[in-house]
Amino acid sequence: MNEYKEYSDIYRGGASILIAGVLLNGKTVDIFISADGKIEDLSENTRTVHRSDAEFIIDASGKIALPGLVNTHTHAAMTLLRGYADDMHLHEWLTEKIWPLEAHLTGEDVYWGTKLACLEMIKSGTVAFNDMYFFMEDAARAVDETGMKAVLSHGFIDFGNEEKRDSEIASTKKLISYIKSMNNPRIKGAVGPHAPYTVSKDALEWCSAYSEEEDIKLHIHLSETEKEVNDCINEHAMRPAELLDKCNCLSSRTIAAHCCWLDEKECRILGKKGVHVSHNPASNMKLAVNRAMPYQWLKDAGANVTLGTDGCSSNNNLDLSEEMKTAALLQKFYWNSDTLLPAGETLAMATSAGKKALGFGNGRIEQGEAADIILIDRNCACMTPLHNPVSNVVYSCNGNAVNTVICDGRVLMSEREVPGEEEILSRAEMVAESLVGRAKEE
Amino acid sequence: MNEYKEYSDIYRGGASILIAGVLLNGKTVDIFISADGKIEDLSENTRTVHRSDAEFIIDASGKIALPGLVNTHTHAAMTLLRGYADDMHLHEWLTEKIWPLEAHLTGEDVYWGTKLACLEMIKSGTVAFNDMYFFMEDAARAVDETGMKAVLSHGFIDFGNEEKRDSEIASTKKLISYIKSMNNPRIKGAVGPHAPYTVSKDALEWCSAYSEEEDIKLHIHLSETEKEVNDCINEHAMRPAELLDKCNCLSSRTIAAHCCWLDEKECRILGKKGVHVSHNPASNMKLAVNRAMPYQWLKDAGANVTLGTDGCSSNNNLDLSEEMKTAALLQKFYWNSDTLLPAGETLAMATSAGKKALGFGNGRIEQGEAADIILIDRNCACMTPLHNPVSNVVYSCNGNAVNTVICDGRVLMSEREVPGEEEILSRAEMVAESLVGRAKEE
Repeated sequence: MNEYKEYSDIYRGGASILIAGVLLNGKTVDIFISADGKIEDLSENTRTVHRSDAEFIIDASGKIALPGLVNTHTHAAMTLLRGYADDMHLHEWLTEKIWPLEAHLTGEDVYWGTKLACLEMIKSGTVAFNDMYFFMEDAARAVDETGMKAVLSHGFIDFGNEEKRDSEIASTKKLISYIKSMNNPRIKGAVGPHAPYTVSKDALEWCSAYSEEEDIKLHIHLSETEKEVNDCINEHAMRPAELLDKCNCLSSRTIAAHCCWLDEKECRILGKKGVHVSHNPASNMKLAVNRAMPYQWLKDAGANVTLGTDGCSSNNNLDLSEEMKTAALLQKFYWNSDTLLPAGETLAMATSAGKKALGFGNGRIEQGEAADIILIDRNCACMTPLHNPVSNVVYSCNGNAVNTVICDGRVLMSEREVPGEEEILSRAEMVAESLVGRAKEE
Repeated sequence: MNEYKEYSDIYRGGASILIAGVLLNGKTVDIFISADGKIEDLSENTRTVHRSDAEFIIDASGKIALPGLVNTHTHAAMTLLRGYADDMHLHEWLTEKIWPLEAHLTGEDVYWGTKLACLEMIKSGTVAFNDMYFFMEDAARAVDETGMKAVLSHGFIDFGNEEKRDSEIASTKKLISYIKSMNNPRIKGAVGPHAPYTVSKDALEWCSAYSEEEDIKLHIHLSETEKEVNDCINEHAMRPAELLDKCNCLSSRTIAAHCCWLDEKECRILGKKGVHVSHNPASNMKLAVNRAMPYQWLKDAGANVTLGTDGCSSNNNLDLSEEMKTAALLQKFYWNSDTLLPAGETLAMATSAGKKALGFGNGRIEQGEAADIILIDRNCACMTPLHNPVSNVVYSCNGNAVNTVICDGRVLMSEREVPGEEEILSRAEMVAESLVGRAKEE
């Protein structure tokens, strides 16, 4: 125990921890986390048994334990573009602002952008995320240092160009090989065909085969806008989910983001194939896609519906707690039902469903599971009164109510302190300014 | 200066304050607040001039100054019901949950509920609000103690019953008389006819005449649901705004909440009469009203559109910063326009437009105006990078980014500390539990 007696050592990991006196599902319990990061014991009298074993004791009286949140669709490094361009028409936004900036992006930018994103996610209670962008080896380095869990994919776009396809295949293989070499069980590679309208059928088929061969996830955008659905019907005489199905892209390895414009038949296909859907309500509202993901149809069809923030240039934050509220509100509003997507289901979307989608366990706080736990302050206005903790978490609080974040037994935030925060903020600010400067010089 | 040298004295008010080195509209300035709570000077070299005059100096380097936020529609004491009943059908929610609980409400409950609401509003940057509920003298006492600004009205409901009408008139007059006796320029009384469907035409006419006679605001719910619009047409052969106009209830003294189902003609009437509209997007989404307030029509008609959270039982918080994002997102989504309600207009809704509606000045940080100023931390993830501070405030940050709140020159929160927070949380918790207990005993 001596090695860990300094408080700052709690961030190192590899130590056993007793979370003492925490409120979990309405009961006050102690949670004992073993040095290998698993929940070893969880009961109303763990404290007596494990008090002397624990290298650290976290006094969690007045705190509520929840599973760590899971963000199933984002482009982490785009956090560098937060607030760079808003309130614009989609086409101008992309062609005049986002693409010209992204043309100057470097690996160093992606590294610091991902670090900033991880910092923001940790500070709002997220322990795992599903990312798609460029320079993903640099993103992987950043994630590795933060201690979070992530599924990382290179955004694969070929627009039917064979040369581009070959280079995207090479980039994808390089990333997967790099991630294997890291040998970090918290970081997984995935294949990331961007969307049915940016990736050729041949490439979609390659992605699907590669995902199966490597047994890795396939991360794709699906039916975000009405236009892409209509274009797909015009070009392929079928709807986007049918096209993906034809290219073997739909399976339990698939995580499909957005899914706003799916029809009922497509929802049934997704359910049958065991696809995981990432609902991204704030992004969908901001970009005015004008239809909310059909939650009830997907649920009825047995698809696993999860939650994601999308990237910061279309949200503009990564606070999954805020996203839970937006999801629960948007479903009710758009589908005209005041009982649709209640608080408990929303929290499950952001925790257990997300974990299942990314293949990181069942996302529950129970014996034998990875210790991915967040502690929420009970003693604040958003938690007062405490008629219903889950309702307060979903509807009343935001990510700032999170006090402590533990991932695989390693403390990533304690009393809202994340090691290295100052440096990440200042370096991310610098690379963002420099990136905008380089784009302006043209 | 001696009397105020203790840091805790900063909460007392009545002292001059220099806010040094704060970012305001892209420039670093100093703001000098005189002991009477007005902004006396504001420039890039105030510091040199006023450094020796100031009784307190707030080092605001790394902070952004904004006008204090204004919540133009809430039922503050309903914060006691936060999370008590969610995800229910409106009718069951009201008849099985809310009304049975409210039947047991006491003045003491409303006092602590309002204190809790004020605490939450201060902690998220709100300095002024427009409230409608019961036991409003107790609410007035609570507001007086917190130092906030408020317009307070007794919720007037007669359902066409003459006896009830007389008692509501008496309650309204009693409140107005009580508030006059307080002689607090920050607290104003208003008349609060609940809605066109709960208040008779005779009573609406009385409210309108009384509002004119006393020169006080008239606070009303208008066209929240489609059903009430259809009922009004069936009963009165006219739409709700036309009915209100006929009863002389529409003027520049009027603050109309919700306004989701107005048609274009009604928007023109509201604009012509100088009515202030309170947009309540989170509540409208949660209660599945299925239509968003027609912002563009109201704007075109010249109505003053402001922002409100509604009560905590239908939101479930009072964070106006979160509400700004919800407003900007909902308008874009529902009205299918990615450029509608941009960040700057949204911030103006929540500040200057709100102040104008409540009659508390112009809501801007300029010489001669009341010092209602909030300071936002620039050094946090939601503000990094700082491509666009206004975009970050509206889309990225929530109320927790607010570090300091000043209302009429009095510091209500400094470094996120509000005097008396612990007592308010524990007392509010106790009265909420007791209230639920009494309702269960029946």
